[in-house]
Amino acid sequence: MRVGIVGLGLIGGSLGLDLSYLGFKVLGVARKEKTCSLALEMGVADETSTSLSLLKNAEIVFICTPIEAIASTIKQLTPFLSPQTIITDVGSVKTSVVKECSQLWHNFLGGHPMAGKAEQGIEVAEKNLFVNAAYVLTPTVNTPEKTVKKLTEIVHLLGAKLSICSPEDHDQAVAWISHAPVMISASLIHACMQEGEATVLELAKKLASSGFRDTSRVGGGNWELGVMMAQYNREKLLRSLIQYRQNLDEIINNIEQEDWQKLELMLKSTNQTRREFLN
Amino acid sequence: MRVGIVGLGLIGGSLGLDLSYLGFKVLGVARKEKTCSLALEMGVADETSTSLSLLKNAEIVFICTPIEAIASTIKQLTPFLSPQTIITDVGSVKTSVVKECSQLWHNFLGGHPMAGKAEQGIEVAEKNLFVNAAYVLTPTVNTPEKTVKKLTEIVHLLGAKLSICSPEDHDQAVAWISHAPVMISASLIHACMQEGEATVLELAKKLASSGFRDTSRVGGGNWELGVMMAQYNREKLLRSLIQYRQNLDEIINNIEQEDWQKLELMLKSTNQTRREFLN
Repeated sequence: MRVGIVGLGLIGGSLGLDLSYLGFKVLGVARKEKTCSLALEMGVADETSTSLSLLKNAEIVFICTPIEAIASTIKQLTPFLSPQTIITDVGSVKTSVVKECSQLWHNFLGGHPMAGKAEQGIEVAEKNLFVNAAYVLTPTVNTPEKTVKKLTEIVHLLGAKLSICSPEDHDQAVAWISHAPVMISASLIHACMQEGEATVLELAKKLASSGFRDTSRVGGGNWELGVMMAQYNREKLLRSLIQYRQNLDEIINNIEQEDWQKLELMLKSTNQTRREFLN
Repeated sequence: MRVGIVGLGLIGGSLGLDLSYLGFKVLGVARKEKTCSLALEMGVADETSTSLSLLKNAEIVFICTPIEAIASTIKQLTPFLSPQTIITDVGSVKTSVVKECSQLWHNFLGGHPMAGKAEQGIEVAEKNLFVNAAYVLTPTVNTPEKTVKKLTEIVHLLGAKLSICSPEDHDQAVAWISHAPVMISASLIHACMQEGEATVLELAKKLASSGFRDTSRVGGGNWELGVMMAQYNREKLLRSLIQYRQNLDEIINNIEQEDWQKLELMLKSTNQTRREFLN
């Protein structure tokens, strides 16, 4: 089978490595010539081009560009495709992407492989990146059943753990476990830095250890990704953050009122329920 | 030199192992006979007893009980001591402890070795627990200089990194880097669990990975310690949490107003300033 990949970064490149290894014929499209030749050298693709016309005979195309380029890429791509071709993407937000892309192509299925690294680019692409990672597919009522079946097969071949849900449920779930934590964690760093007593701030920096390191990690990450999450998942992220603020207020209130029993009940329950999130 | 340790748990036990190895004569006091005999077996102490009278000839006594028992232990201990004896503690909050204990004993110096493990008790005590860990001493204007000098020597012998500051500065710094993160992190778990859509909550549990795991870690820890921090460091913790809530509100407001430039500036600054906290 001929599989197209547009955008040969960490995700597109790693997909290419796995799909080539699995025996698919991989056609890779990148904006830069240099990325195309590197993709050939690394075994990411069998053929590469800077032109989307390379994909004219592809049966499935993975759009692996940054989220803001997905729809415009599909617009440029569709004139080359035969009507049976499946288009899927790898963006980390789904409601807005699926809505726009389904209008551009009848056979579109949103996807989100939840694998990543701190580094970006084809240079850090690796085989088996998706093994044991979550891979979400978000069909709508209009998605052809054959399309879901085909992509389900590929997700299993990649060794990833498949979840199928609506684009909206996906976005609310990742708002909770990925997007809200970034804002919650960034607020901690920002608040610390606003400590007005210089000796206290210096001491805090000196004494910070694993607890601060872990709680602040995702808030000190890639800021462009952080802004992108907020832009594309604004409504669901706000819903999570507003619920979060209510719970924070409850804790602050318990401490103000010295209601140690309520605080203990809450910390006891978080100790127990956290385990349900650890696979 | 004869050193007394009251409370042979993880911290007291580990101190005993190191001090014995360094050639001090270690006198250990525990509430239970069983702990006393285990301490002898493990090499935590040279002599042990369930009675504080064992410490009558000690030159320094480390109080390693839970924080709420420090003052009452000192009250029971002082009748046995000669006036030159130094008393120090290992509690994680200092202002209230130092205030109360300085009134009970003229030669008291507050201390906080910032080492720990998830497990508690003498069974998990280990040599070199304090190597490269922060160890804070919090003298007041009334603390004898000789006392600070003596404990400084011991902190260095343990291989720990010494900080000397006021009890108040200590408490505000640990509110920022240790106590507030617990509440911030617990609020995240609590808020997630209040997601009203059962399918979303199940999906969130399934999709949670390293970002959620790290941000929620300290909020899913020992709840008794969490309540204790809030009780004993209430005022400073509230100061940090209220500043934190302001910064969270700022982020929520930027997202509501779609002010992506301000959000980017903030996430860019937290990316850069976080490094100052990582030693």
